[in-house]
Amino acid sequence: MPDGLMMSRDEVSAFIDREFPQIHHDGRLYHIEEVGPLSARLRMDYHERHVRPGGTLSGPAMMTLADFALYVAILANIGPVALTVTTNLSFNFLRKPQAGRGLVAACRLLKLGRRLAVGEVTLRSEGASDIVCHATGTYSIPAA
Amino acid sequence: MPDGLMMSRDEVSAFIDREFPQIHHDGRLYHIEEVGPLSARLRMDYHERHVRPGGTLSGPAMMTLADFALYVAILANIGPVALTVTTNLSFNFLRKPQAGRGLVAACRLLKLGRRLAVGEVTLRSEGASDIVCHATGTYSIPAA
Amino acid sequence: MPDGLMMSRDEVSAFIDREFPQIHHDGRLYHIEEVGPLSARLRMDYHERHVRPGGTLSGPAMMTLADFALYVAILANIGPVALTVTTNLSFNFLRKPQAGRGLVAACRLLKLGRRLAVGEVTLRSEGASDIVCHATGTYSIPAA
Amino acid sequence: MPDGLMMSRDEVSAFIDREFPQIHHDGRLYHIEEVGPLSARLRMDYHERHVRPGGTLSGPAMMTLADFALYVAILANIGPVALTVTTNLSFNFLRKPQAGRGLVAACRLLKLGRRLAVGEVTLRSEGASDIVCHATGTYSIPAA
Repeated sequence: MPDGLMMSRDEVSAFIDREFPQIHHDGRLYHIEEVGPLSARLRMDYHERHVRPGGTLSGPAMMTLADFALYVAILANIGPVALTVTTNLSFNFLRKPQAGRGLVAACRLLKLGRRLAVGEVTLRSEGASDIVCHATGTYSIPAA
Repeated sequence: MPDGLMMSRDEVSAFIDREFPQIHHDGRLYHIEEVGPLSARLRMDYHERHVRPGGTLSGPAMMTLADFALYVAILANIGPVALTVTTNLSFNFLRKPQAGRGLVAACRLLKLGRRLAVGEVTLRSEGASDIVCHATGTYSIPAA
Repeated sequence: MPDGLMMSRDEVSAFIDREFPQIHHDGRLYHIEEVGPLSARLRMDYHERHVRPGGTLSGPAMMTLADFALYVAILANIGPVALTVTTNLSFNFLRKPQAGRGLVAACRLLKLGRRLAVGEVTLRSEGASDIVCHATGTYSIPAA
Repeated sequence: MPDGLMMSRDEVSAFIDREFPQIHHDGRLYHIEEVGPLSARLRMDYHERHVRPGGTLSGPAMMTLADFALYVAILANIGPVALTVTTNLSFNFLRKPQAGRGLVAACRLLKLGRRLAVGEVTLRSEGASDIVCHATGTYSIPAA
């Protein structure tokens, strides 16, 4: 486990499975690929349920992935605090995702304070370099 | 049909069913209750699929409803333009929704220009007065 | 003083003059017209310093006014807490302000919690009804 | 001039001086240090006019610098289009700037389309590595 992390990738995955099983309602579409100091990388499989006309993943699918990526990065860096609450999310949708492909989310925490955590996420279609969506989010951390 | 509208509620609903059937993937959870000049009101049924620990509807469910409400308000006011694209969405999550209840979305368009539409949405739990989420969104309208 | 307020308009103005005299650096351009339960109304005079080509008030002038209006509404409703900190501000610029006119800001707090306050502001040119800018903001309230 | 740029740093500076002299109303506080492909770096001098209690630069000073940095990056990359209009700006304020220091803005454009440009800006106190403010902005580009 990298220096400074409170939970490894496998520990975060197990915590999510126990506390948020709903995220897997349509099957295991969300995969935590890596957690690191102030960072996380996730992948979302392509799934017809989340598709829009033209075969590209929907805006809500991107928003769900970005929110989840921020939550995972915070968990890995502060430890198992189930009650962290999203207070603000802001999205810029830049391009259509590529048809028939999953999405990769790269998350970076910009601040990890005692009461608030703030981070950004860039989403790209698998195997592509263009950013399809940029998100920022703020999370309130409950008093210990 | 109120003055200035390009589509009635029933016309918008029929257009959505034809162009975005995916929105009904889990059954008919989203209901367009009313469209008006620069406005729309929608309802989302409570559904276990969109629930978080504690029995409240999830952040992604709220984001999906807000995005959909803005899209419906724009459609009703500019007519059937399938390719309107979300460019920006920003959410403030204010309180937990009430357990076991659906959500009501009240949408107001702040600007309906030739190229961009901007609006805000307030979400409340059914039968409650507190705002649980406030959203603003920008949509790019394709050249005619 | 309306029910539930912690400071009257004059008390807020005196507090601002003492704690944030910089706001008056260019003269008294910002006027607190009214404070109320979860609300405030401010006015900003037209001033050549804040003008852009075409004679309209600048984006930064609008952002300063919106941030100030939110701060005033929070102060009036929680009392003299100098250290309230802006954590997030989001702006949609909808139309150009009218040339040669001041701006009116109408602020409404959507949430006034123990740790966070969230509100929205609509800005209009004086004497006009169109919204030129819509803002939302989040403020962190220090532990008592 | 780097490949792909439409204006050099000196050309952008001369354009700004001619079209937006108001930015220098308090003296030459804003300096364009570098423009590049989809990027720009600016500096803002410390100036007592923009200071808050504690000697740190104010939120509006940060917002003005971020908006200006995005405008400069777009100009350098699309050429002298005076009428580019800010449509959305969103800020996360992460830490207090350091007392008595200027600010450095690093801007990166995430999308430079025919009608819309979107970018992000990170602000740091001079000589420091922590991000004090993160901004994203959208600009509407007039039809040629």
